[in-house]
Amino acid sequence: MDIKSIKIRKAEAKDLGTILGFVHQLALYEKEPESVTTNLNEYEKCFQAGIFEAIIAEIDSKAVGMALFYDTFSTWKGKMIYLEDFIVLEAYRRMGIGEKLFDTFLEIALKKDAKLVKWQVLDWNTPAIDFYLKKKATIEKNWWNGKIIFNSK
Amino acid sequence: MDIKSIKIRKAEAKDLGTILGFVHQLALYEKEPESVTTNLNEYEKCFQAGIFEAIIAEIDSKAVGMALFYDTFSTWKGKMIYLEDFIVLEAYRRMGIGEKLFDTFLEIALKKDAKLVKWQVLDWNTPAIDFYLKKKATIEKNWWNGKIIFNSK
Repeated sequence: MDIKSIKIRKAEAKDLGTILGFVHQLALYEKEPESVTTNLNEYEKCFQAGIFEAIIAEIDSKAVGMALFYDTFSTWKGKMIYLEDFIVLEAYRRMGIGEKLFDTFLEIALKKDAKLVKWQVLDWNTPAIDFYLKKKATIEKNWWNGKIIFNSK
Repeated sequence: MDIKSIKIRKAEAKDLGTILGFVHQLALYEKEPESVTTNLNEYEKCFQAGIFEAIIAEIDSKAVGMALFYDTFSTWKGKMIYLEDFIVLEAYRRMGIGEKLFDTFLEIALKKDAKLVKWQVLDWNTPAIDFYLKKKATIEKNWWNGKIIFNSK
């Protein structure tokens, strides 16, 4: 696979089904399909409201990966872009697609005048951590996540 | 201090200087004053752009605490509200102000039709962790943060 044949483009509303499909596939692979409790309608509502945006990686017009992110705010640094999810389909890994998606994400963040970007990685995911370290990222290990999922939802 | 005398209200643009003042005080207390590299102009720009919002805790019209949060999106759950920062001035702790701020934050998130709320806590901050556990939060310990701070900023 020639890296030049990989095209990265901004996601549009019509891509949301594809993105949710990727999310479902990954959750299944992680043996947690029941944890995906949202649906396309919620994706559409939040996308139209401008809560998140995404970029799509394509090979021959076929979507093979995506990065989903949104504007947030660091009280210490200012405007921050948060990378919520970042998926490359298994059959298309180790071809540089993830790097192209990540680099495009960084370019977009810079153009948006962000002061920093942030994301999370599972502590056992050594290949991902190595990738981020090569990108000169700082990895912080001393924060825990707090979460309350509303019952009625 | 009677808890009824604590008033929680939405922050307006005129409160941003107070909020940044709280952030500076906390950074100084944490011996990291130089890490706060942003300024009031950036706060104003992002607040006006609707990137974040905040609530203020007041006693006799004096601001003594704040919670700052923004709309985000979970690819598994849907609309998510993220609590970025949550401060009660030292002299006003252990009076229930933090709990009132946090409960108001949860109410706002529910009204916004969020499916969940999320935040972070330092792994050594046992009083905060105990507080969140009492609130029936889930604490996840297996995620690390990745961060790239843009040099030119």
